[in-house]
Amino acid sequence: MNKVGLIGLGAMGAGMAGSLRRAGFVPHVYDIRPEVARAFAAQGGVECATLAELGAACDVVISVVVNADQTEQVLWGPDRNGKGVAQAMRAGSLFVMCSTVDPKRSIEWEEALQGMGLLYLDAPISGGAARAASGEMTMMTAGTAEAYVLADPFLQAMAGKVYKLGQRAGNGSKVKIINQLLAGVHIAAAAEAMALGLREGVEAHELYEVITHSAGNSWMFENRMAHVLAADYTPLSAVDIFVKDLGLVLDTARASKFPLPLASTAHQMFMQASSAGFGREDDSAVIKIFPGIDLPKK
Amino acid sequence: MNKVGLIGLGAMGAGMAGSLRRAGFVPHVYDIRPEVARAFAAQGGVECATLAELGAACDVVISVVVNADQTEQVLWGPDRNGKGVAQAMRAGSLFVMCSTVDPKRSIEWEEALQGMGLLYLDAPISGGAARAASGEMTMMTAGTAEAYVLADPFLQAMAGKVYKLGQRAGNGSKVKIINQLLAGVHIAAAAEAMALGLREGVEAHELYEVITHSAGNSWMFENRMAHVLAADYTPLSAVDIFVKDLGLVLDTARASKFPLPLASTAHQMFMQASSAGFGREDDSAVIKIFPGIDLPKK
Repeated sequence: MNKVGLIGLGAMGAGMAGSLRRAGFVPHVYDIRPEVARAFAAQGGVECATLAELGAACDVVISVVVNADQTEQVLWGPDRNGKGVAQAMRAGSLFVMCSTVDPKRSIEWEEALQGMGLLYLDAPISGGAARAASGEMTMMTAGTAEAYVLADPFLQAMAGKVYKLGQRAGNGSKVKIINQLLAGVHIAAAAEAMALGLREGVEAHELYEVITHSAGNSWMFENRMAHVLAADYTPLSAVDIFVKDLGLVLDTARASKFPLPLASTAHQMFMQASSAGFGREDDSAVIKIFPGIDLPKK
Repeated sequence: MNKVGLIGLGAMGAGMAGSLRRAGFVPHVYDIRPEVARAFAAQGGVECATLAELGAACDVVISVVVNADQTEQVLWGPDRNGKGVAQAMRAGSLFVMCSTVDPKRSIEWEEALQGMGLLYLDAPISGGAARAASGEMTMMTAGTAEAYVLADPFLQAMAGKVYKLGQRAGNGSKVKIINQLLAGVHIAAAAEAMALGLREGVEAHELYEVITHSAGNSWMFENRMAHVLAADYTPLSAVDIFVKDLGLVLDTARASKFPLPLASTAHQMFMQASSAGFGREDDSAVIKIFPGIDLPKK
């Protein structure tokens, strides 16, 4: 049986590693916080002290870090010192890239790893920590048939739905950032609509009830405005995540000189929220940029 | 039994009048196209030749016209010549205003009619022509208890869901325009996201499949991008409706100097589409403002 390793036991990665364990695999794990990897392994799993140790031990390496820079560090080591997983992995083994990144980067990583005799899967994830923990998250993937042969048993263990969007890297990351474009605009629009309602003296819970049963509804309005009604800005996903993700969307479009009027406006709103000190609050805190309203209190 | 009249047998009004008839009422009807009122009455109902005739005959007058200017003509007659319904209605009878208008106008109409001894209900509608025809549309209403006593049997006949949002006019129209803010931004965002996908070479049907099962989904993405995939821009609701409705949203916010970054951006996108000649096409045709992409063809 192929051995699997997972790097990054954050909100998503911890749930995914747990799903692998529940499916009967014994995942190797690495985290920059050794105590987190140790605690996971104590319940079933193998703690790796270094990225290279994990890369050498596993046929399939799943990377669940925050962004492209961290993915680079996982692959090539901090400061590109060769102490990452890539140089340690055996020929024919597979790297599964689950972060939200500029699609061009994912395409470049596939080329670099193929040049080293390794397989690569472009595999961003979606659905939030709760679905990651229950093995019901969504994966937006693209890669070669050979990569899928190795990946499939582990993808099935971690995800409720695996979209296969192309035979080389790129489309997984492209569809993911297009999802983020919509998610970010919808959160900012939900905040703008709720803010106007408060400004106009509409009762917030009544507005929520009507909108969630009308054509103006979105997945994000329904989910995030519940946080605003509860005055609970505990970050399930933070404002700064959308500063990053809408930035990636805009970078991608700029590379082909393509205009995105709404994504660029929403990006400004999240940056305004971050500059005002709300960057680490829940992304629904983008509503705090609107002046002259009284938000619901706890 | 109180007599009911309905003015404006367009896409929504025709369905609502049909719902009243199905519920056992014999609606009086008026339309600026006499042949349309005659054809309806021939199946059961009473054709009125003038607004005043309808106003004099009915205890409850339901107005389902396109905008505030048409509502003014219904109330006071063309050129405010007194040949509308208001002067003809008996004291204590009810005017039900179903158009999407600036909430301030609705508040003014209630005051004017109350000054004439008439009742008024602020009652914008939502849900589209199909739900209006099946009696399953949504109404966002506000008004006095006396107005609801007269209105309730007819509201129940016409709507699947009647939200009661206040004891005087205003909140019905406010919640309706907030719904339109979200609907308009979501249609424009759906177009922007689909356009970026096409620009990046993602297959449109695959993108639709993933997004409609992900957190980036909205009611409008799911509904309107199906039109884009089918290359069918037959106007179920036209681009120019959102030029009008987002304009109302912005007018309302401007009156209290409140900023709406996304609604104003989306409004510009719909105006760009209208200026380019797509004003009477389906509102999903806002995607045609994006250059450098090949839209799906029939």
